[in-house]
Amino acid sequence: MSLQQDLYKAMLAVLPQQHPDKELETFYRLIRDYPRRGGKLLRGQFVLLSALAHGGSVEAAMPVAVALELFQNWVLIHDDIEDGSEERRGEKALHRQVGMPIALNVGDALHIYMWQVLLGLKLEYKDAIAQEFLTMIHRTSEGQHLDLSWVEARRFDISEAEYLQMVSLKTAYYTVISPLRLGAWCAGKEPHQDFEPLGKALGIGFQIRDDVLNLLPSKTYGKEFAGDLYEGKRTLILAYLFSQLNSAEKRQLETYLAKEREQKNSEETTEILGLINKYKALDYAQKVADDHAQTGLELLINALAPLPEQGRVNELTGLLESLAKRNT
Amino acid sequence: MSLQQDLYKAMLAVLPQQHPDKELETFYRLIRDYPRRGGKLLRGQFVLLSALAHGGSVEAAMPVAVALELFQNWVLIHDDIEDGSEERRGEKALHRQVGMPIALNVGDALHIYMWQVLLGLKLEYKDAIAQEFLTMIHRTSEGQHLDLSWVEARRFDISEAEYLQMVSLKTAYYTVISPLRLGAWCAGKEPHQDFEPLGKALGIGFQIRDDVLNLLPSKTYGKEFAGDLYEGKRTLILAYLFSQLNSAEKRQLETYLAKEREQKNSEETTEILGLINKYKALDYAQKVADDHAQTGLELLINALAPLPEQGRVNELTGLLESLAKRNT
Repeated sequence: MSLQQDLYKAMLAVLPQQHPDKELETFYRLIRDYPRRGGKLLRGQFVLLSALAHGGSVEAAMPVAVALELFQNWVLIHDDIEDGSEERRGEKALHRQVGMPIALNVGDALHIYMWQVLLGLKLEYKDAIAQEFLTMIHRTSEGQHLDLSWVEARRFDISEAEYLQMVSLKTAYYTVISPLRLGAWCAGKEPHQDFEPLGKALGIGFQIRDDVLNLLPSKTYGKEFAGDLYEGKRTLILAYLFSQLNSAEKRQLETYLAKEREQKNSEETTEILGLINKYKALDYAQKVADDHAQTGLELLINALAPLPEQGRVNELTGLLESLAKRNT
Repeated sequence: MSLQQDLYKAMLAVLPQQHPDKELETFYRLIRDYPRRGGKLLRGQFVLLSALAHGGSVEAAMPVAVALELFQNWVLIHDDIEDGSEERRGEKALHRQVGMPIALNVGDALHIYMWQVLLGLKLEYKDAIAQEFLTMIHRTSEGQHLDLSWVEARRFDISEAEYLQMVSLKTAYYTVISPLRLGAWCAGKEPHQDFEPLGKALGIGFQIRDDVLNLLPSKTYGKEFAGDLYEGKRTLILAYLFSQLNSAEKRQLETYLAKEREQKNSEETTEILGLINKYKALDYAQKVADDHAQTGLELLINALAPLPEQGRVNELTGLLESLAKRNT
């Protein structure tokens, strides 16, 4: 089995399944629902590969990788509620299936299974690992707050600096910085101090790449084309566009973005895509993404160079690099 | 200062306040908002008094009491969203102030400050304390699921057994069982095995008393008279009423309860109060509450009899007893 398959199995194994009360057994099924759907399990794999690269074992790192995937899953349940999302991993979002109140409570329950795994760790550095989770979740919730506060205030003209701060908090910690650091602790090693700056750079690179892909018509990309525009998602592309538009265009873009998803038709959306095209906003964003990814990868290669398991270092670097340059 | 005041101060002291970013400072203010509003802090006081009764110190038990109060606060933020509540502690519910998405995320952030306190404990039995929190939150979320699943299914004709199971999970653990057990661990003592059955009995007694008070016109009770009927809350009073009504009355009650809050007028509500009166449902519920409280208090007195600090035992027993017999 691959690391990904092992991780998937280990994650489901820590979640509850049977209960004599039928309704509570349903509750357990809902707790397992997002984890069951799978996904790429990339962040957990980063933990495992970082641990292996540092000379640690899969056995030691697996529960930590599982805890990180459980984090991702409870956060997604809550994010989907916060964002009013329709779908997750090809199925209905949980709150669309069972209603918002039940889904919210399922997210909280899943959160507790994450802590149960962390409190059960037998590792020497279990306290450092728990502290890393605290830091990671603090930063992620702060980034989420920034994003949500703009939505609530109907603010779309975010500056590039504001956007980068939000993404480095909301995405970079749990996607790169913490997985790399957690892998080191799993192997009993102090994490390299550059994991923070390089993880920020890579996390920013990934997120911008994701936002660019959303606006590139493609057969392979998994999400709805231009879905970010329909959802009014704040991206670097929009931040840049706002800095370039004349005042009539700016009003047009703001009017479009301020509408509810259902009120936006494809003609208007095509006009906005025209503005993006006119000002080469995708090229600009891709350039920023590439610069960040490049900076991050260079720091990463230096940071990982002294590690004992260079075969695993190559795997880890390759996976992070492929993410920065992905087309799907 | 009283224990309650010390606890209030200690709770706010562990929460973040200042941030160079203005919007993140707002986030911190929102994290502090429910804790700032105060409340009775009863559950934290139970922890402190249980620790003192077991021969422990306030200093050792305070962070655990704080963590329990933080639990109560993040759960209230999420419960208020799940129940669509309007107010909390005399002010607008958080999601009515800042919108549901931001409030949900604030609840998650506050949850993490609870774990931060627990992971920072220096006590010998910190692992047992963390395990107690896991158990408590699992049971509370299961009880909440039962309650929410009935709301979602628009099921009102709950049996007495179903109601008692729900309340013992949703209320008894975090209100009595866990505070008593946590206090013991804070003093370095193994919790008495009867804390679980007696805590269930007392928790059930308190909750039913609360539901009865809501339907007794009173100048001192803090919440809206008959608010539970307007909200369609499942109570023992309704469970009993459903078991007694003839079929026409049952239809009348179901029709009333199935309406949204805004569609219910005071005339209809008065008619339902008439049914409650006709079948003496309040008397019945109060009797069940008294029986449970009595059983719980007897077990409690026996369980606490061997403890070293009998002055504190009396305080704790008195506080629990006053809750069971309260008029406000």
